[in-house]
Amino acid sequence: MAEAIRIIGIDPGLRNTGWGVIDSLGNSLRFVASGTVKSDNKLDLASRLNQLYEGLESILHQYQPFEAAVENTFVNKDATATLKLGQARGIAMLAPARAGLRVGEYAPNAVKKAVIGVGHGDKKQIVMMVKMLIPKASFDSDHAADALAIAICHAHHRTSPEWRMAAE
Amino acid sequence: MAEAIRIIGIDPGLRNTGWGVIDSLGNSLRFVASGTVKSDNKLDLASRLNQLYEGLESILHQYQPFEAAVENTFVNKDATATLKLGQARGIAMLAPARAGLRVGEYAPNAVKKAVIGVGHGDKKQIVMMVKMLIPKASFDSDHAADALAIAICHAHHRTSPEWRMAAE
Repeated sequence: MAEAIRIIGIDPGLRNTGWGVIDSLGNSLRFVASGTVKSDNKLDLASRLNQLYEGLESILHQYQPFEAAVENTFVNKDATATLKLGQARGIAMLAPARAGLRVGEYAPNAVKKAVIGVGHGDKKQIVMMVKMLIPKASFDSDHAADALAIAICHAHHRTSPEWRMAAE
Repeated sequence: MAEAIRIIGIDPGLRNTGWGVIDSLGNSLRFVASGTVKSDNKLDLASRLNQLYEGLESILHQYQPFEAAVENTFVNKDATATLKLGQARGIAMLAPARAGLRVGEYAPNAVKKAVIGVGHGDKKQIVMMVKMLIPKASFDSDHAADALAIAICHAHHRTSPEWRMAAE
């Protein structure tokens, strides 16, 4: 019998970075914890990025996940917003990498497909399906729910040849 | 008499991150070192970001700068390129912040104005002026020359009220 794999999903954002930890054992998923790391928008950018890093570092230390997954998304609004998201996303990938975890990346429609069953849908549907798939899940923000959805997506894909190839 | 202030300028990029260290004492600038941290594009993104972080961390440790400056730029090509740059830029700001440095941000035209005298100009002019302003400067790439230009820009602006306000 396989061992349970602990996965952290991260939904990066400069102001709010959601995270969700689950255990995956075969087809069953178990909720471990979730939350939101916030940065103080009164501080300068470098200090805010450091707040995100330290928040994630402490969560990684506390829950000791084995693999990480981050959504591979960009906002279409404007270049400034995309650059901001990119900076937060850099931190969201660095923190688990420095903790020795492999970090999977998933497109938004792959995440939606994994939780809703189709590659499109709104935030409400994601939140509803996360609650269905891991009944004991609780979360303090949509970002944390999204992070759990990303972790679920990784649980489904982590044994696929593409991920193994990318991770090896 | 004031003490010399050691400054590191960083020109972030996922493939090549340039860095340049100078000492600033009143109106005089002295070259210390410069170089380029590279990431291996055969690796996954999280590992590449970690390579950039570790490269910068080791340079910060070796040269012990007191303040850092990063260009506040984005590429206009497309959202994917902007997101990539944002990720590298996040690392370029995090590394000095985690080493306890204050990190200044400068717009590209402020950097050009500081080295060329006007807010526009091409890479060749920047390289030429960096050599003029710090005669002993040597660099292994345009990224390293740009990083020295960013450090020069910070040397000019670091005592201005805006920077002090942003930094405090």
